[in-house]
Amino acid sequence: MIDVSKFNKIRANDLFWLSTEMLYIIGLGLGDERDITLKGLDAVKKCEKVYIEAYTSLLSFGLSTDGLSTLEKLYGKPIILADREVVEEKVDNILSEARGSDVAFLVVGDPFGATTHTDLVVRAKTMRVDVKVVHNASVMNAIGICGLQLYRYGETVSIPFFTETWRPDSFYEKIERNRNLGLHTLCLLDIRVKEPTLESLCRSVSDVAADTNCVGFARLGSEDQMIVAGTMKQLRTVNFGEPLHCLVIVGKTHPVEDEMLEFYKITTENPEQKGNGIV
Amino acid sequence: MIDVSKFNKIRANDLFWLSTEMLYIIGLGLGDERDITLKGLDAVKKCEKVYIEAYTSLLSFGLSTDGLSTLEKLYGKPIILADREVVEEKVDNILSEARGSDVAFLVVGDPFGATTHTDLVVRAKTMRVDVKVVHNASVMNAIGICGLQLYRYGETVSIPFFTETWRPDSFYEKIERNRNLGLHTLCLLDIRVKEPTLESLCRSVSDVAADTNCVGFARLGSEDQMIVAGTMKQLRTVNFGEPLHCLVIVGKTHPVEDEMLEFYKITTENPEQKGNGIV
Repeated sequence: MIDVSKFNKIRANDLFWLSTEMLYIIGLGLGDERDITLKGLDAVKKCEKVYIEAYTSLLSFGLSTDGLSTLEKLYGKPIILADREVVEEKVDNILSEARGSDVAFLVVGDPFGATTHTDLVVRAKTMRVDVKVVHNASVMNAIGICGLQLYRYGETVSIPFFTETWRPDSFYEKIERNRNLGLHTLCLLDIRVKEPTLESLCRSVSDVAADTNCVGFARLGSEDQMIVAGTMKQLRTVNFGEPLHCLVIVGKTHPVEDEMLEFYKITTENPEQKGNGIV
Repeated sequence: MIDVSKFNKIRANDLFWLSTEMLYIIGLGLGDERDITLKGLDAVKKCEKVYIEAYTSLLSFGLSTDGLSTLEKLYGKPIILADREVVEEKVDNILSEARGSDVAFLVVGDPFGATTHTDLVVRAKTMRVDVKVVHNASVMNAIGICGLQLYRYGETVSIPFFTETWRPDSFYEKIERNRNLGLHTLCLLDIRVKEPTLESLCRSVSDVAADTNCVGFARLGSEDQMIVAGTMKQLRTVNFGEPLHCLVIVGKTHPVEDEMLEFYKITTENPEQKGNGIV
């Protein structure tokens, strides 16, 4: 038997490993500033520089300039907004900083959730910068709240960015395949979609699933999250409010799944009785 | 358009809704007591009674009696261990308590992660007990750390409890189906398996995947987590140590996925150079 635990010991003897400098990639969770873990907050507090990725799911976090100052107050230090340009072009600068001091890179959700930061880790490891990951909830597991079992989901579908002249439809096939296997499908909208609303999402997939049971989510994990179950046709009549939105196409259900979905179901006859449900 | 946000206002006018009593189902994350979120800790602190589910993944949390007292110290209040019997038979007592005072139900990982607590929510809602969920990381998203993209996973496979006379094999089919589609497969061991080790897991699936690339995880999300990539044959020679273990069968990979897996890869020629990797 190879005892891989000894690798830790070898690394502990390595001077480089003993240096405390580290790139912390920290998941913030889905709701607000208090969704960070104690471990994540401990790490942020010991870091000299704190970056926050601002180009993917920041929207869901409700992070305006106000949101940022809420975070800064909690952390007791300034936060640098890292937009797509910073992350893609100046990442080596961030990583160089992480060689001489602890640096935090904050990510909405989990660092390896719907949007992964694998690239960042690969570049860090290549530059011999050590990385520590602090996990948190992401849309990939928080959707479990609607009652559909996570292990009964097929491949996740990313609805691409449609242009005037380019309307890719390869995702239809994946949705169909999952449905044929009785599996649920999580549909996420490409972050480049200007209106990442459930309405435009439904528009994109209604060809394959107009009468199919679906669950619509808005601001998942936030205090004002909205979860509504119904046919896609019904969901298209619902105003889900602010982004981010995502959609689950329901596969074959188990009785317990049905019971739970019932709490979220909207009926046209009696819309007041149902809807939002659990926070 | 039906404005579902008004449902909140309707409920706010409902006296029952205005009562502060609540059942909080709180995810603890995967590592130790400091993986709770600030929001989760806020909730625990205001609850009169605090239960912790002790029958699923508690093992992964390293929660011995010592672990429990660490939690109690952090929370400043006693914790009641809720084993399977308590949760299944006396859940109505817990829910009755939640009608008169705030009650916390702590769950390792996320409340709707690998093991869902849908049943508990359904019973609570039926008894008109309001429920608030505090999300956290679960194995379902934390496996993203190995670099394989979460949206490229097919259906999750639960390896069932084998007895002397009963060796179900329906999960083979799911693994094969995912592989044929080029998708990754997360394999979890049924919690009733006495030795929930990667070795027994590999034994179970080696018929379908002896030479397939896999990633083995032990104590995912903990400070001493272990992540090793290799063929299933190679992984069977590795001592992964204490539970919990899980296994990912690798599908068709993207170059970035390969780069990341490389950091975890074990080679028989030079085992010291590779292995554990990122914490």
